[in-house]
Amino acid sequence: MEPIRVNFLHTTDIESTLLIEGLPGVGQVGKLVAEHLIHELGAEKIAEIHSIYFPPQVLLDGEGVSRLVSNELYRYGGDSPILFLVGDYQSTSGEGHYLLADEYLTIAEKLGVKRIYTLGGYGVGHLIDEPRVLGAINTPGLKEEVERAGAVFTREEPGGGIVGASGLLLGLGAFRGIEGICLMGETSGYLVDPKSAHSLITVLCRMTGIDVDTTTLQERAGEMEQLVERLRQMEERRNDEELNYIG
Amino acid sequence: MEPIRVNFLHTTDIESTLLIEGLPGVGQVGKLVAEHLIHELGAEKIAEIHSIYFPPQVLLDGEGVSRLVSNELYRYGGDSPILFLVGDYQSTSGEGHYLLADEYLTIAEKLGVKRIYTLGGYGVGHLIDEPRVLGAINTPGLKEEVERAGAVFTREEPGGGIVGASGLLLGLGAFRGIEGICLMGETSGYLVDPKSAHSLITVLCRMTGIDVDTTTLQERAGEMEQLVERLRQMEERRNDEELNYIG
Amino acid sequence: MEPIRVNFLHTTDIESTLLIEGLPGVGQVGKLVAEHLIHELGAEKIAEIHSIYFPPQVLLDGEGVSRLVSNELYRYGGDSPILFLVGDYQSTSGEGHYLLADEYLTIAEKLGVKRIYTLGGYGVGHLIDEPRVLGAINTPGLKEEVERAGAVFTREEPGGGIVGASGLLLGLGAFRGIEGICLMGETSGYLVDPKSAHSLITVLCRMTGIDVDTTTLQERAGEMEQLVERLRQMEERRNDEELNYIG
Amino acid sequence: MEPIRVNFLHTTDIESTLLIEGLPGVGQVGKLVAEHLIHELGAEKIAEIHSIYFPPQVLLDGEGVSRLVSNELYRYGGDSPILFLVGDYQSTSGEGHYLLADEYLTIAEKLGVKRIYTLGGYGVGHLIDEPRVLGAINTPGLKEEVERAGAVFTREEPGGGIVGASGLLLGLGAFRGIEGICLMGETSGYLVDPKSAHSLITVLCRMTGIDVDTTTLQERAGEMEQLVERLRQMEERRNDEELNYIG
Repeated sequence: MEPIRVNFLHTTDIESTLLIEGLPGVGQVGKLVAEHLIHELGAEKIAEIHSIYFPPQVLLDGEGVSRLVSNELYRYGGDSPILFLVGDYQSTSGEGHYLLADEYLTIAEKLGVKRIYTLGGYGVGHLIDEPRVLGAINTPGLKEEVERAGAVFTREEPGGGIVGASGLLLGLGAFRGIEGICLMGETSGYLVDPKSAHSLITVLCRMTGIDVDTTTLQERAGEMEQLVERLRQMEERRNDEELNYIG
Repeated sequence: MEPIRVNFLHTTDIESTLLIEGLPGVGQVGKLVAEHLIHELGAEKIAEIHSIYFPPQVLLDGEGVSRLVSNELYRYGGDSPILFLVGDYQSTSGEGHYLLADEYLTIAEKLGVKRIYTLGGYGVGHLIDEPRVLGAINTPGLKEEVERAGAVFTREEPGGGIVGASGLLLGLGAFRGIEGICLMGETSGYLVDPKSAHSLITVLCRMTGIDVDTTTLQERAGEMEQLVERLRQMEERRNDEELNYIG
Repeated sequence: MEPIRVNFLHTTDIESTLLIEGLPGVGQVGKLVAEHLIHELGAEKIAEIHSIYFPPQVLLDGEGVSRLVSNELYRYGGDSPILFLVGDYQSTSGEGHYLLADEYLTIAEKLGVKRIYTLGGYGVGHLIDEPRVLGAINTPGLKEEVERAGAVFTREEPGGGIVGASGLLLGLGAFRGIEGICLMGETSGYLVDPKSAHSLITVLCRMTGIDVDTTTLQERAGEMEQLVERLRQMEERRNDEELNYIG
Repeated sequence: MEPIRVNFLHTTDIESTLLIEGLPGVGQVGKLVAEHLIHELGAEKIAEIHSIYFPPQVLLDGEGVSRLVSNELYRYGGDSPILFLVGDYQSTSGEGHYLLADEYLTIAEKLGVKRIYTLGGYGVGHLIDEPRVLGAINTPGLKEEVERAGAVFTREEPGGGIVGASGLLLGLGAFRGIEGICLMGETSGYLVDPKSAHSLITVLCRMTGIDVDTTTLQERAGEMEQLVERLRQMEERRNDEELNYIG
């Protein structure tokens, strides 16, 4: 078995100058955004990627039918076609991260991609009321465009750089002359965060001109807020009871 | 040394359309079933597999004679011959899991295998009186056949998918057009579980038409239940003593 | 850099039918024995092995001169020449264990080796007054010879088989028709154990006809016993003091 | 993607007989020294090295522009040109350490390097007022020269040898006939240690004849001392308060 296996389901009309990556990561922020766009735009799956660097695992659908864990390429064929890179997992090893990102860039180059947006979460360790969107770029000169769309650049964040596919597609992409912009929604890092995803999608749509309904994302954000609120109240009640017990 | 070394002990009469995998896993459920079948049917070893992805270890028999850890193929040559894949260990790394499963499928394809049953345990974290058998399939349309034999499909279980050989043989097998059915006996996950194995073998025999005596498996299940009961009583007594001590 | 690099310092008079392996392991028992024999017999270093599977490290001699961690082959050229395999470390990965053991067997085969003794410790988790020597073999029929020399075979020990070079040289050696005998000195597993090494060397010398002075090994065993005794007394005193304090 | 990718930015005037390595390590001592020298001498970057053995990560500059983690070669072209090897990270795996060090030596050999200084910290687990500089060599006969410059050789330190690039460049360099000298500044191991770096640079400059201003390094050492002092006082105050509370 080759270490990375790419299986194209379509061979025509698959080019695009734009790739949006939303693989799993902190708060699943990038994944939420990319999957929401795929769903709303009705993008079509054009390739499946399997790899020995993914966990050795199958997932089951509602009918008990197995599916090998994968990364996938979708394509939305509007006036300006867009590619999406999503999936179940990222690599389990550092070496695999590099080899997969490099393969993704080889595919992107072949399909004519000139710019990649990588989406992710930026974990801050506490709940956030109004999550900002942080930006990073792989080519000097892109900053203003990103800021105009509402993302911010700060000297301190993200301190540790950007790890995994979102980072490597920028870093390795620069060597190939592919523009890379990473957008990171602030998130606690503890929970799946549709609220941060909503902030992120707003910036992304402004930058790309994509126009989608974000109602379901907002609804999920509302549900998650209620869940967090209930957890908070349960916690408070438990603390009160403990105080009564001691008193 | 090649990463995976397959050594066939027989070269004639080794074809079969059916492969049953029972490698070590949760509760050793799959291993118990496959080894019981090999023993009762008098299946014959036809191949040994060694690999750098197995633990670097030999096991000793009762005479102190060493044997490199291995996976093994057995064959029962009745009217409808059956292959069995069993062994001491699975791979120690994710990459090894993929490479071994792929090699097993290459062998299976060469030997004419059209369907694979992968057997395992599904750990639920508590003792179970009447373990169900959960099913998963790699080809739509197999579900009814599996349900008729007594296995159940639930939308929620197993939540994390299926990890290791039992999962990969389904997932990678689908690419080769080999039907795959995974049967998982519910088990606590804490102990070797012959009771779960008994539930599993019942379903498997119904599906495959294999007819074997399961008395020894039932006896081991009975012994294990008595052991669990004794452990429970010891635990209770210890709790009582502690209460007396405090009281 | 090739993954395993073997550098022969001598190219003539290096054959031998006998190889004794004493790489680091539980209680350093095998290492103590092999290094004692090399020292007492005045065996000569004939090869150095370096590998990316060893820790990425140099050691320093008393003059501050560095030496890349290695495994080494020594040769004693008496009437029946003997090879010794010793070293600083074993592989840090399972795959490396297999690839190194296989390389060692390729070398052994080229040099004419017909029998390998692998030496190790068998950790029992408590101090032992009269450590037994456990035996294991890779070829049926060797058992009696090993027992006559004073080693014992028990059905239960070692339960987990034999891990690392001592095991793999037996397991992989069997495929090449090289006889393998593993001798394991019982040891606590907590400390370097020259006493266990002394038991082991006694059995090994009986089997091989090697005749060496074991005084220094006995002295080190005596020193270690005194050290253990002092540790015991310190522990007792501390317990007494705690009781006084409470009382 | 090749496992190690070396990209030369200059192809002329890049030879040198001297290489100084200061990659990240204990107390960042070696890194501080090498980067201080690069800065003070105005050395020029001549090569960037990327590798799948580095963490899968990009770092961001103050403008949010990403840069794939790397190791880098700088060159100072004075009368006796000097090469510097610095970088963000060392390898994440043992195998990678070996393969990178070997590649660095291949480059060094091509560029005419005859001697390598590897710089590091030696962690002692407690704060040190006057950090010594320990020496190690890969060629007998270099010791006196190192001692004359103020480094010390002790039989006991560093007990575990030298791990990572600083060790392997000595160990593997010896096979290529490249002289290697490792200088290690004593350091607590808990903090970035410019004081230890100052001790180290003093010895290094004496040995190499490099003449640089070390004021900024001394200032940073002073700042770090004040920080440590403040931490100490905070700790004392906390202890006092706890005593008051108990008393």
